[in-house]
Amino acid sequence: MQLTILGNGSGGPFQGRHYTAQVLQVENRLFLIDCGEGTQMQMYRFQVRYDRLEQIFVSHLHGDHVFGLVGLLTSWCLKKRTNPLHIYSPPGMEELVETNLRLCGVRVPVTYPIHFHVVEATAFDRVFDDTLLEVFSVPLSHRGVACCGWLFREKIRPRNLRPEKITEYDIPYSLLPGIKAGQDLVLPGGQIVPNDELTLPPRAPLSYAFCSDTAPSDQVAEWVKGVDFLYHEATFLSEHTAEADLSGHSTAAQAAEIARKAGAKRLLLGHFSGRYADTAAHLAEARAIFPNTEAAEEGKTYEIAAAG
Amino acid sequence: MQLTILGNGSGGPFQGRHYTAQVLQVENRLFLIDCGEGTQMQMYRFQVRYDRLEQIFVSHLHGDHVFGLVGLLTSWCLKKRTNPLHIYSPPGMEELVETNLRLCGVRVPVTYPIHFHVVEATAFDRVFDDTLLEVFSVPLSHRGVACCGWLFREKIRPRNLRPEKITEYDIPYSLLPGIKAGQDLVLPGGQIVPNDELTLPPRAPLSYAFCSDTAPSDQVAEWVKGVDFLYHEATFLSEHTAEADLSGHSTAAQAAEIARKAGAKRLLLGHFSGRYADTAAHLAEARAIFPNTEAAEEGKTYEIAAAG
Repeated sequence: MQLTILGNGSGGPFQGRHYTAQVLQVENRLFLIDCGEGTQMQMYRFQVRYDRLEQIFVSHLHGDHVFGLVGLLTSWCLKKRTNPLHIYSPPGMEELVETNLRLCGVRVPVTYPIHFHVVEATAFDRVFDDTLLEVFSVPLSHRGVACCGWLFREKIRPRNLRPEKITEYDIPYSLLPGIKAGQDLVLPGGQIVPNDELTLPPRAPLSYAFCSDTAPSDQVAEWVKGVDFLYHEATFLSEHTAEADLSGHSTAAQAAEIARKAGAKRLLLGHFSGRYADTAAHLAEARAIFPNTEAAEEGKTYEIAAAG
Repeated sequence: MQLTILGNGSGGPFQGRHYTAQVLQVENRLFLIDCGEGTQMQMYRFQVRYDRLEQIFVSHLHGDHVFGLVGLLTSWCLKKRTNPLHIYSPPGMEELVETNLRLCGVRVPVTYPIHFHVVEATAFDRVFDDTLLEVFSVPLSHRGVACCGWLFREKIRPRNLRPEKITEYDIPYSLLPGIKAGQDLVLPGGQIVPNDELTLPPRAPLSYAFCSDTAPSDQVAEWVKGVDFLYHEATFLSEHTAEADLSGHSTAAQAAEIARKAGAKRLLLGHFSGRYADTAAHLAEARAIFPNTEAAEEGKTYEIAAAG
C-alpha cells in the first residue's frame, strides 16, 4: 500500500498548498480520495497514472474537496475513456456533475459509464468490496454536513507457498491454489502433509483511514481501531482550538489524541490552514501526544507497511 | 496596459500547461479573462493581487475556460469579500455558479454581490464602459457554441499640461481640468491662448483583443482592426489543419493571417494543444506570415504600449 499526497491545504491557495486529494495504491489498483481544484494537474505533475483510476471516494461536497472532479471527468472525455468509473460520495454528486457537464458543453452520456454511489455518511458501512480490499464509510463530524471518512482494509491474503516443499513433494500444479488457500496435501499413499509445513502465513492485511474534514470524535477512533496508517486533518494548532470547534475542524493535538485512542500505528496530519507558513508547530504539538506522526507533504509517497 | 498569462494550454493538463486565464491590468484596474481550473492557484503563484478584481470576462462555458471560477468565488467567501463582482459571459453562467454554490455548502447569497451580465455572443457590442476603457464583445466561431472574444479599448486620455506654460501664464488651478480637456485660455485682457500652446496631445489609447476559442474568421479581423496587441488561439500547427477545422480551432498560420488582416501591431499565440511539447514550431509558422508574433508563456507579463 502506498499513499501519494496531492494536496495538503485548506481554504484558499495559500502558502502554495493545493486542495485535498490523495491517491492510494493497493497492488496495481489506484483509488482517488477527494478531488479539490487542480487535482488532475497535481496527478500529471507527480506522474500518477490516473487513467487507471476506476474508483473515486469523495468525503463531502465542499469546494476544496470536490471542485477538481468535473475537470478530471471532462479530460477523460477528451481522451475518449471507455472504462467505467465509480464515484462514492454523500448525496448531491450526481446533480453536481450532471449540471456542470450539461452547462459546459460536454456531450452526455459521456464516453464512459459513471456510476454514482450515494453514501449517506450516517453509519460505518462497507461500501466497496473486491478481491483485494474492502472500503468502509466512517461518518465524520463536520458542522452537520454529510461528511465521510474512508477506511481501506486489505483482505486476508493467500498463504505463501514454500518453493522447496513443492519440489520435495512434486506437488501437481492444479493443487497449488487449494494449498495457498489453506488445504493440506494428501500424498498418493494417503499420508497427509499439513498445510503449515507447505506454506508460510501471509503478511498481515494493511489498513489506511482517511479522516477529513472533522472535529475530533471518539467514535471515529473506535471505528478505525488499530489502523496501520491514519490520515487525520489538523487544520489548526491548539492556540486556535476555539476556531477549530466553530468550524468543525481539528487541531494537531486533537488529531494526535484520536490516533492514540485508535491505537493507530502511524499518523499523518494534513488540511493545514493557510495562516500557517509551515507545519513544524503542528508536528511538535502532535508528537508530544503521538510520537509516530508526520505532516503530509505534497508529492510525497508514503509506504504503508506492517509495523516492524 | 499589461497582460499576465496564467495558462496557455488546452485540453488536459499536458506538458505542465495550465488552462486559459489571463489578467489584464489597465492603470490600477485588473480584469480577469477566462478562468480555467487552477486560476486562483496561478494568481497566487504569480502574485497577482486578485482581491482587487471586480470584472471577470469569460469567453464561453467550456471547462478549460471556466472550471476555476466557482473555486475562486468560494475562496472570496472565505475571505469575507464585500466588494461587488461583475461576470460577463454567454448564457448559462448564473445557473452554473448557483448550482455549484448550493450543492457545495456555500451560504447563498454570498458575502458580496455577484452581477451576472449575459452576453449573447452574436454581435460586436459594447458590454462595459467606465472612465478608463470600453470592452466590446467579439463573436467567435467555435463549433456553434456561444463564444465571445473581448476587445479592450482605452478611452482617449486627457491632454498633458505643459508645466512651463502654467507658470508663464500663472494659470489658476480651477482652470486646469478644462484645459486638460481641450479648452483655450482666456487671459484677463481678453487675449486667447490656444490649447495646443498649453498642452501636448495625450498618448494614443491602447487596445487589446482576446480571441479564444475560435476558427479563423475574417469578420473577427475586421472587428479588431488596428488592435495594439492581439491574443489569438493557435491550438494546432498547419499539419493538423483538418483537426483544427473539425474542432473549431485555429492553426498558428491561421492566427497569423488574422493578425495580418487585422493590421494588429503584435500577435500573441496561445491555447496550445497538449500534443506539442513546445511552441517553437508555432512561432516559426506564424512569423513567416506575421513577424511580430510571440508565444504566450505562463507567468509572463506583456507590456502593451504604443508602437514605437
